[in-house]
Amino acid sequence: MKKEGTAKEITDENLRQFVGYNMKRAFLNVRADLADTLEPIGLRMTSFSALAVIIENPDISQSRLAEALHIERSGVVVLVDELESADLISRGRVEGDRRQYALRATKAGMAKWKEAETAVNAHEAAMFSKLTEAEVTVLKELLYRVRRPEA
Amino acid sequence: MKKEGTAKEITDENLRQFVGYNMKRAFLNVRADLADTLEPIGLRMTSFSALAVIIENPDISQSRLAEALHIERSGVVVLVDELESADLISRGRVEGDRRQYALRATKAGMAKWKEAETAVNAHEAAMFSKLTEAEVTVLKELLYRVRRPEA
Repeated sequence: MKKEGTAKEITDENLRQFVGYNMKRAFLNVRADLADTLEPIGLRMTSFSALAVIIENPDISQSRLAEALHIERSGVVVLVDELESADLISRGRVEGDRRQYALRATKAGMAKWKEAETAVNAHEAAMFSKLTEAEVTVLKELLYRVRRPEA
Repeated sequence: MKKEGTAKEITDENLRQFVGYNMKRAFLNVRADLADTLEPIGLRMTSFSALAVIIENPDISQSRLAEALHIERSGVVVLVDELESADLISRGRVEGDRRQYALRATKAGMAKWKEAETAVNAHEAAMFSKLTEAEVTVLKELLYRVRRPEA
């Protein structure tokens, strides 16, 4: 029978040796803070990302949006409905394919994106306040180069 | 009516400006590859992490394990059952608290951890093959310093 040492700190050095674990911890913190940042703006992480991609790629189809966001087709349908209901995007018809829509941001969607972009920049400034500007650039660049090896 | 440009590349520059987005993309790649790495060893990401923490903190309670792994109490119960069924950990009693267990890795659990640790190191070497050893160290260190600002 052991007495539980309530005062003793639980350590995670076995896991901290791995980059992936540090990445996970950092990402979960970023995600939680991002959710809190977007909530008062009326967006979620996925609708924020979808709006960003639609603005950058006018007339994108739902299937290509799903690919870009790495989500299921069924998920993108819900997402597009949500953005359209909020009047942030509109659906046009795609020539030669009646099942497809061409997605575009509305004027309100453009304004919402600008508002969100400013807020997310402030969120990142806060999240990475322990890093210098140069270090943030290095971090972003190194993350960009992480690639799954070809199978 | 717009013709969908199937040849045109969908871009994500609006999102790539954010560190968090690059982190998410990198993390999802790491997670997918880690799952494939652990599967033949009979572990999942959570059971791998739990085993790591139990080995490092012998006689840890389930509630403190839940805290360390940032998961719900209900999730940790399932996890501990799984590890115990596989004979990788054992539960002892905690003095003065009949509802708590003191968790310890078995000899088989120790061997499993060593096997997994070696495999995960190989997985990381592959994932970060586009980075030099020095860059991997920098990446890990920068990620460790990402902190949610105090609320």
